[in-house]
Amino acid sequence: MTATPAAPTPLPPLGETARARLRTALASERLFFEPGDCLPYAYDNSRRVAIPQAVALPVGEDEVVALVRACRELRLPLTVRGRGTNTTGATVPIAGGVVVSLERMNRILAISPGDRMIECEAGTTNGDVQRAAAAHGLFWAPDPTSAEYSSVGGNLACGAGGPRAVKYGTARENVLGLTFVTGTGQVVRSGCHTTKGVVGYDLTRLLVGSEGTLGLITRATLKLLPRPAEIRTLRAAYSDVAGAIAAVTRVMGQPAAPCALEFFDGDAVALAQAWRDCGIPPGTGALLLIDVDGDGAGLDADADAISRAASGTGLIELRRAASRAESEDLWAARKALSPSLRKLAPRKINEDVVVPVTRLPELVAGLGALSHEHGLRIVSFGHAGNGNLHVNLLADPADPAQVAAIETCLHAVFRLVLRLDGTLSGEHGVGLDKRDFVDWEIPAPALALMHQLKGVFDPDGILNPGKTLPVSRPR
Amino acid sequence: MTATPAAPTPLPPLGETARARLRTALASERLFFEPGDCLPYAYDNSRRVAIPQAVALPVGEDEVVALVRACRELRLPLTVRGRGTNTTGATVPIAGGVVVSLERMNRILAISPGDRMIECEAGTTNGDVQRAAAAHGLFWAPDPTSAEYSSVGGNLACGAGGPRAVKYGTARENVLGLTFVTGTGQVVRSGCHTTKGVVGYDLTRLLVGSEGTLGLITRATLKLLPRPAEIRTLRAAYSDVAGAIAAVTRVMGQPAAPCALEFFDGDAVALAQAWRDCGIPPGTGALLLIDVDGDGAGLDADADAISRAASGTGLIELRRAASRAESEDLWAARKALSPSLRKLAPRKINEDVVVPVTRLPELVAGLGALSHEHGLRIVSFGHAGNGNLHVNLLADPADPAQVAAIETCLHAVFRLVLRLDGTLSGEHGVGLDKRDFVDWEIPAPALALMHQLKGVFDPDGILNPGKTLPVSRPR
Repeated sequence: MTATPAAPTPLPPLGETARARLRTALASERLFFEPGDCLPYAYDNSRRVAIPQAVALPVGEDEVVALVRACRELRLPLTVRGRGTNTTGATVPIAGGVVVSLERMNRILAISPGDRMIECEAGTTNGDVQRAAAAHGLFWAPDPTSAEYSSVGGNLACGAGGPRAVKYGTARENVLGLTFVTGTGQVVRSGCHTTKGVVGYDLTRLLVGSEGTLGLITRATLKLLPRPAEIRTLRAAYSDVAGAIAAVTRVMGQPAAPCALEFFDGDAVALAQAWRDCGIPPGTGALLLIDVDGDGAGLDADADAISRAASGTGLIELRRAASRAESEDLWAARKALSPSLRKLAPRKINEDVVVPVTRLPELVAGLGALSHEHGLRIVSFGHAGNGNLHVNLLADPADPAQVAAIETCLHAVFRLVLRLDGTLSGEHGVGLDKRDFVDWEIPAPALALMHQLKGVFDPDGILNPGKTLPVSRPR
Repeated sequence: MTATPAAPTPLPPLGETARARLRTALASERLFFEPGDCLPYAYDNSRRVAIPQAVALPVGEDEVVALVRACRELRLPLTVRGRGTNTTGATVPIAGGVVVSLERMNRILAISPGDRMIECEAGTTNGDVQRAAAAHGLFWAPDPTSAEYSSVGGNLACGAGGPRAVKYGTARENVLGLTFVTGTGQVVRSGCHTTKGVVGYDLTRLLVGSEGTLGLITRATLKLLPRPAEIRTLRAAYSDVAGAIAAVTRVMGQPAAPCALEFFDGDAVALAQAWRDCGIPPGTGALLLIDVDGDGAGLDADADAISRAASGTGLIELRRAASRAESEDLWAARKALSPSLRKLAPRKINEDVVVPVTRLPELVAGLGALSHEHGLRIVSFGHAGNGNLHVNLLADPADPAQVAAIETCLHAVFRLVLRLDGTLSGEHGVGLDKRDFVDWEIPAPALALMHQLKGVFDPDGILNPGKTLPVSRPR
């Protein structure tokens, strides 16, 4: 979020004693100490950078345990990392220490199509899981934009979602069990191999979204779902935001669930049109892009039901993609939005706030007012079926007034979201970017419990320190 | 589970000091001390009995907090109770102290159909939630047999499921946020009002299934779903268990999800037929009862897809209920199974074990072998789509050999389930009945963490002591 973080104070290289201790945990060819070797593990997609003092590439759980034990003895921070695709700084090792990258723990351990279950090491990419599942007509629900190269462990640790979450849920709803290593080096197996199970406390969901601060997820048992044979894409253009959001409410209020329900505000529509002529009718003030999946006659019936629900006041055009190619065209505009925006304004803040669906009109109106007040362009689009909007604050880096306004405006956006009963993150997580705003949302007693839980899982505070929870411990 | 528990040592009445302290928390007309008044709160559906030393009926969160603080000062156990419909002894106050019944905290606080969300006090019955939701064409997914009179708080605290879980998930997947009171009397708000949210650790899911040992849930924000217009019932009779289970795997392997997929073994079929002639064809060795919900053409298409998937080796008859009345007839046999069994064998143990769906044939075969080995009749039926079977061990109370065998046989059933990668409870929970078997399933490191979490939420161990976790604290 903060686009110009203070450059981190460079940390001194690790001493020979520490290096020697780490070498007892891991073969030296998979342990890096040179800043040049460590640099690729210094950043994520947040544009923050902090070079770790060491990087470790374990190939098995026993090595992860040995690394945690070594770091604990050395009181050395340990930041676990999947592929570093997160946008919040969650994997940037601001406190130095060791980055443990699980990229070489990428084996699929078991797949049982009849049980709709796959078990894999945490470093397996989401894409590899999807390919293994697809061979049996199955898929794993989380579909972040980074799916092709982000890891299952990272998806779980950050609580990844994606457009499909509106029908199939996020990481939280699509994991059965985990293996993780706590800050004391204990290997913990949680959850089960079945879709139901209520024995013991739910450690699995506690780890989901904890961003490597409670444990290093090393292995996951994932719930797979049958892959529908076809997807149909609908595009509904409305004269204004109110019409589009009323349509979202109607679509979500009937049983045929869309598998994506994406919203574009007027500015996002204009950007999409500017990127490539998509034939969006003039006068479009807001647009919905809707995917419906299913098989044969059931799919037709669902698409009809959703089309009916999308129709109403303010609808200008409802278009059903005639072919796969046309559907991909419609989506290309959606996927190009984020890079288009960055090109337009390199000083861009992309938030993923959520409000209850019925509050979306107030959110969009409030954003309009804030844009006006702060003299900043704000473009919003995203997963409207979940009330999860990606709100983009754009500043011209050449205009110091805009650059100065962006942080103030962002705070006002957060206050607006919370006033509307919303949450500050739907799927990107907290990391560093939202850490200092967490106590705007979470009341002190809940936050105090979270700090105590952190103390249970990681008594020495070595796991990804400074992330996820506000730093000053509430009393 | 243990059908003849040792009678609890009667506890002495509370002294006047303790009574006076409790009266500072609650008006005396909602505070009972006389054993006769306390008796209705002494048992649940597990057939265990332990008369509490006091019963409190708070009407608001402030009173719950005052009660917890009083109990903490007095070091008095506190067992929270919804309607006491659970089957595991989870609400039987074995350690004495105060039963806090939330039956008078039963207000629906808000319903927002456009957000598919309802907020209610924990003592609201599932049935009242369903009625309020139905007025807007919505429903709440958990549908335990006790739905009409069990409470939302109890459903959440026990992780309730029901037949519909196969399509819509259990309590865990259908709660957005909670308010709960910890063992120190802190009021904690967790979760959010939206279907996505990854800020902070997931305290909400940690409370789900914790059976009142981590906190007293006082309020819940529930996720509602659009209610399909119609339900169709299919009944598929197979010559043997293998054929029926293969069909379960096929049905679960295609995208049209049934909203119930219930299995009857051969004995259960015979019982259903004996209860009332349901026209099940002779030679039926296993049966599936399948509900499909939806609207119009989509429903027809789904029912067709599921019928095709249910067809295959071993199928004797596939019958589609022609009317609502016929569908209710088919289900009446399913719902009568449990009482029929109890009538047949008052000494009945009903388990709700789960195994991965593909292991069901091994489970059913293993149960057959155990039945033979221990000279006990075992009847199984239940939610096959989740691999969640209700395994009923029947003993003739007049036969001491059978009575003696039942406990040994049960242990063997548990070992079998765990060997098949299963879990000891899918939806009934642990309570007292399975408490001493939890460490058969959950490895020591996970259990140690759970004990530590208990210590965080309830440092003095006053909340529902002796439940959910094995009593001897692992080191």
